[in-house]
Amino acid sequence: MVRVEMLVVGRELLIGRTINTNAHWIGRRLALMGTMITRMTTVDDDLEEISSSLRETLGRNPEFLIVAGGLGPTPDDMTLEGVAMGLGRKLTVNRDALRLIRDHYSKIGRGGLRISPSRRKMAMLPEGATPCENEVGTAPGVRIPVGRTVIFCLPGVPGEMKSIFRRSVEQEIRRKVGRLYRKATRLKIEGIFESAMAPMIRKELDEHPGVYIKSHPRGLRGGISRIELDVVAVKEKKEDAIETAKKITKEFVRKVQEAGGTIRSAQGMRADKKED
Amino acid sequence: MVRVEMLVVGRELLIGRTINTNAHWIGRRLALMGTMITRMTTVDDDLEEISSSLRETLGRNPEFLIVAGGLGPTPDDMTLEGVAMGLGRKLTVNRDALRLIRDHYSKIGRGGLRISPSRRKMAMLPEGATPCENEVGTAPGVRIPVGRTVIFCLPGVPGEMKSIFRRSVEQEIRRKVGRLYRKATRLKIEGIFESAMAPMIRKELDEHPGVYIKSHPRGLRGGISRIELDVVAVKEKKEDAIETAKKITKEFVRKVQEAGGTIRSAQGMRADKKED
Repeated sequence: MVRVEMLVVGRELLIGRTINTNAHWIGRRLALMGTMITRMTTVDDDLEEISSSLRETLGRNPEFLIVAGGLGPTPDDMTLEGVAMGLGRKLTVNRDALRLIRDHYSKIGRGGLRISPSRRKMAMLPEGATPCENEVGTAPGVRIPVGRTVIFCLPGVPGEMKSIFRRSVEQEIRRKVGRLYRKATRLKIEGIFESAMAPMIRKELDEHPGVYIKSHPRGLRGGISRIELDVVAVKEKKEDAIETAKKITKEFVRKVQEAGGTIRSAQGMRADKKED
Repeated sequence: MVRVEMLVVGRELLIGRTINTNAHWIGRRLALMGTMITRMTTVDDDLEEISSSLRETLGRNPEFLIVAGGLGPTPDDMTLEGVAMGLGRKLTVNRDALRLIRDHYSKIGRGGLRISPSRRKMAMLPEGATPCENEVGTAPGVRIPVGRTVIFCLPGVPGEMKSIFRRSVEQEIRRKVGRLYRKATRLKIEGIFESAMAPMIRKELDEHPGVYIKSHPRGLRGGISRIELDVVAVKEKKEDAIETAKKITKEFVRKVQEAGGTIRSAQGMRADKKED
């Protein structure tokens, strides 16, 4: 599997100020492609933390590293300086980035000949980097090839992150991943304990290596145990993915009912619905 | 500062299935104590990922490491096995943990003499570990002292995680952190660009080292830039924290208004309100 790591920068995520919806969104996009974030590291706005975690991540040789947050104009925005430090490269004014920033301020009517130090800061990229246009906000995304890894730095503002991801990141990852098909189902189950489902899951995992099967306990309601069960099959052929996921899910339906449990809903099992 | 790291285990967090609200909740609790999560690593349900990330985390010598998720009875719940592997310790049945699990099933009327392998699995702890009672669900939390680090493993189910954190984790961290006071304010600002606020923030950071000052751009509404500005002062004396945060915040109010911006709201500035 193509290894994609994420490095998320921002104290707001570590002090319970902000929920990391960016990782959720990117994780979902990658999952739909048939790959996933293999590891995610969240660090403080701190040069030592950013540079050391970057080096550790690159040591695992991922194909892609998505760095999110800390590209803006204020002093706490130090991601590119930290990345440059981690790579042992210089930060220099990138002319293409500077042009993109000038264009942005002109477009929103805040242009002018003078570009302030805070605005210029957003155009300071590590050597060897190229900017990715930000159609929504100011700070450009940044692409940096390092050995076998391609690093993408994206802003933390969700609208800007998504726009740059769609425009400049997604296609490159998709090309590397290749054409894969994913079929996901979800059962909502009542009246059976997770500990009783464990051997059923073990058996299906043994018979279908590589398929993702996971139960999520949802607590008791009126003394009745509730569980959600996810099955995800990723295959090179669409029919294989569908057939595998459905076969396993039907087997769970049968066994759960045999064991006295109830299926409250079965998502992804209808033949005529758009595949997830 | 006391270093507290988090290691979160669960593919559901990496594929956009689940939002990491546990980290948000723990991060907030720690912030209110005057400390924070210094780094958070999220990994897949995979022994190699869990054990290698555990070793890397311990290599940074945190005072505390909170591991969340993967303590349940199903095959994907492999956190304790991964932790034991990372520590080079054996997994053995822990009698106290077994008793807690038996008691739980008796209490909910699913007891009996026989304890199934899936239930016994939750009592397999790394050598040297002690269980922490789970008053809400089945799988006990686990406390493991390793060198200068204390590891706590908590279930991923939010209600269970919170219950064990409050009962068995919080006091121990608080004792280490000591008595600190935290004062936070938040300004909602309109009509000034973040790039124009950058020098103001730089100046206050220079004058008040150690105080957290961060701006969060909230986009444009009707062409008007909106920004939230957080100020957090943590001090040994309550009055110092309050005075510092308020002084800095008042300075921002003055400068923003001078620069033509508007203050939409100022949270945490009223003298008679309960301090955050």
